[in-house]
Amino acid sequence: MDLKPLLVKNDERILLVVADGLGGLPKDDRTELEAAQTPNLDRLAAQSSLGLTEPVAPGITPGSGPAHLALFGYDPLSHEVGRGVLEALGVGLVLTPEDLCIRANFASIKDGVIVDRRAGRIPTEENRRLCSRLQEEISDIEGVKIIIKPSKEHRFVVVFKGYGLSDRLPDTDPQHEGAPPVAVEPLAPEAERSARVTREFLNRATDLLKAETQANYILLRGFSHYPSFEPISERYGLKAACIASYPMYRGIARLVGMEVLETGNSWDDELETLSQTQDQFDFFYLHFKETDMRGEDGDFAGKVRLIEALDQRLPQILALNFSVLAITSDHSTPALLRAHSWHPNPFLLHSRYCRVEGVEGFSERRCQQGVLGQFPATQVMPLLLAHARRLKKYGA
Amino acid sequence: MDLKPLLVKNDERILLVVADGLGGLPKDDRTELEAAQTPNLDRLAAQSSLGLTEPVAPGITPGSGPAHLALFGYDPLSHEVGRGVLEALGVGLVLTPEDLCIRANFASIKDGVIVDRRAGRIPTEENRRLCSRLQEEISDIEGVKIIIKPSKEHRFVVVFKGYGLSDRLPDTDPQHEGAPPVAVEPLAPEAERSARVTREFLNRATDLLKAETQANYILLRGFSHYPSFEPISERYGLKAACIASYPMYRGIARLVGMEVLETGNSWDDELETLSQTQDQFDFFYLHFKETDMRGEDGDFAGKVRLIEALDQRLPQILALNFSVLAITSDHSTPALLRAHSWHPNPFLLHSRYCRVEGVEGFSERRCQQGVLGQFPATQVMPLLLAHARRLKKYGA
Repeated sequence: MDLKPLLVKNDERILLVVADGLGGLPKDDRTELEAAQTPNLDRLAAQSSLGLTEPVAPGITPGSGPAHLALFGYDPLSHEVGRGVLEALGVGLVLTPEDLCIRANFASIKDGVIVDRRAGRIPTEENRRLCSRLQEEISDIEGVKIIIKPSKEHRFVVVFKGYGLSDRLPDTDPQHEGAPPVAVEPLAPEAERSARVTREFLNRATDLLKAETQANYILLRGFSHYPSFEPISERYGLKAACIASYPMYRGIARLVGMEVLETGNSWDDELETLSQTQDQFDFFYLHFKETDMRGEDGDFAGKVRLIEALDQRLPQILALNFSVLAITSDHSTPALLRAHSWHPNPFLLHSRYCRVEGVEGFSERRCQQGVLGQFPATQVMPLLLAHARRLKKYGA
Repeated sequence: MDLKPLLVKNDERILLVVADGLGGLPKDDRTELEAAQTPNLDRLAAQSSLGLTEPVAPGITPGSGPAHLALFGYDPLSHEVGRGVLEALGVGLVLTPEDLCIRANFASIKDGVIVDRRAGRIPTEENRRLCSRLQEEISDIEGVKIIIKPSKEHRFVVVFKGYGLSDRLPDTDPQHEGAPPVAVEPLAPEAERSARVTREFLNRATDLLKAETQANYILLRGFSHYPSFEPISERYGLKAACIASYPMYRGIARLVGMEVLETGNSWDDELETLSQTQDQFDFFYLHFKETDMRGEDGDFAGKVRLIEALDQRLPQILALNFSVLAITSDHSTPALLRAHSWHPNPFLLHSRYCRVEGVEGFSERRCQQGVLGQFPATQVMPLLLAHARRLKKYGA
């Protein structure tokens, strides 16, 4: 539903807290959220409405891109974003629709076979050194400008700036060790030139890297162009800001037109940024990444501790007195699965206008029993706007 | 959503148990499922996720065809299957899209009025004798080949094999006793020839049956062509088998490309077939018909007993160690209504990756409170695939 005709401006501020991968699965009958001691969240839940959000569709495990797009109100099935574009946005590149974006990994190759797809997860410093070296030596291929930017650990971004570059190229990453890289063959006739530029780039880059012990190869994935999104300012009438330390999330926020604020690497840095800028925006997207990482590592206890750390910061968040506060996740990352999952997300909504739970406790099961029930994540934004009194009546 | 790009092959096996018409309505405050003693199901429920599935849409009572199509993940509103086709598939006929399929009943007529629409539910043996006689005498009309196959009791199938036969003909069954049969008049100009062949068929058949005391007439219903479905092997990457003793359910399974296994008439026969073939398929659809029949008969106590019989077989089913087990129904058949109903279906999902209920009990009310909430039956298959880890992540 197009909300634009209903939008109203006012001073009510909205805070959307995304604890990445928060939802989990039970171990000894309790999920990570249930095992965690969360007295502040539990108390807040009693004065809030709870529910469960479904990022894409039942049974579908979303990547971070689709999961965040859904939370921001953009149907992820009709708004696809390539990994290359997300990474490029994340490292702060300014893109045009002609640019071809590629997500790259430093990798280790031996006798033509990939022996480590992440080059031993080299330190970010090492990544920076290698990227500068590559950028210095490779700036142009067939009139296409080459931009190389480090991300974190083994990840970096390559952007080909030029006209008529097609994204119909395969990932060169074979997805598992022990296999040779996938050859760069065009998937459509119009990708012939892109393929040639890519091959030349790979040849020159691996020549430059051949003396490296770990990062002696490059894998390329997610060839993609920058898609065009209706900005959140138009779609929801919100001046919106993103506070996230990880590049990918900053990238997706930029894609939907949020202002991406400078912040530090820790949750406390992010909260400090929020505290300092709270009066300058109508809407904040505040992203906590680490819960997801512990889930991906299969570290149940570690995820529990991080949920408790979030709980300890809740009084500080509440003290900022946002009119509307939502606490949720983009997707679940159960430690049991060591991966994103298809299970719906716990969702807590706090405002003056909630039908409150009246029962303490914040967990997947409590949310399932909650006032809001289970609903598509794309409906979160309309709900937040309603609670901020930013949507007028539909019809007379 | 098209799942094909997300499909992954592995060894995880899925078992979908359909207790036909399982859902009910309360008598003395308890539904059939609540009145039944089901200790095994109750215990399993505590370690599973529960929910309610909606076959077609709120308030819509589905026939068995649409209800099963929904369960198998085919939107029943965009995949119509005529009753004639279902019956023809059920008796094992191999069809082409040109064939015109008709569901037929032996009936009793007196002075031009139908006095029994089912000819006293004549025994299947009698049905077989009459069908052979008809087939012997009527093999061809106007160059159209006539196939006559007995089903169960008074039901049989007629297929007209020829080109250009339209299905735009009315059911001749007046739907209640005491009325004359409906005349075979074409519903569209292109059905003129089909109407002529049908009238000639009826004339010759009733002439052959005129000496019968009960089955002296034929009622025709559901004139229909064979529709084309994407096979379940392509749609979900599953090697799928059907274990069902009733023709109609075998027919619909065949329609979506399942392999229909030979089995006996009893639940124990079906379980024996499952046990013997369990390693040969990725997915089993196991159908228990009788719960529905007791519901249709208005036999509350009988339906309760059958639910208890299902419960007693649960340990045997669990011993087969399927990775994913779902127990549900295609539609509800409350004894109170003596018919299919629009009420959603109890749904139980058991796998390693469930957010478990933690509470014993399997009933419509428990399912309504369940972890999965209420959801369209078309989403059952994606959910089963997810729990079998057969769907990879959507997007990066």
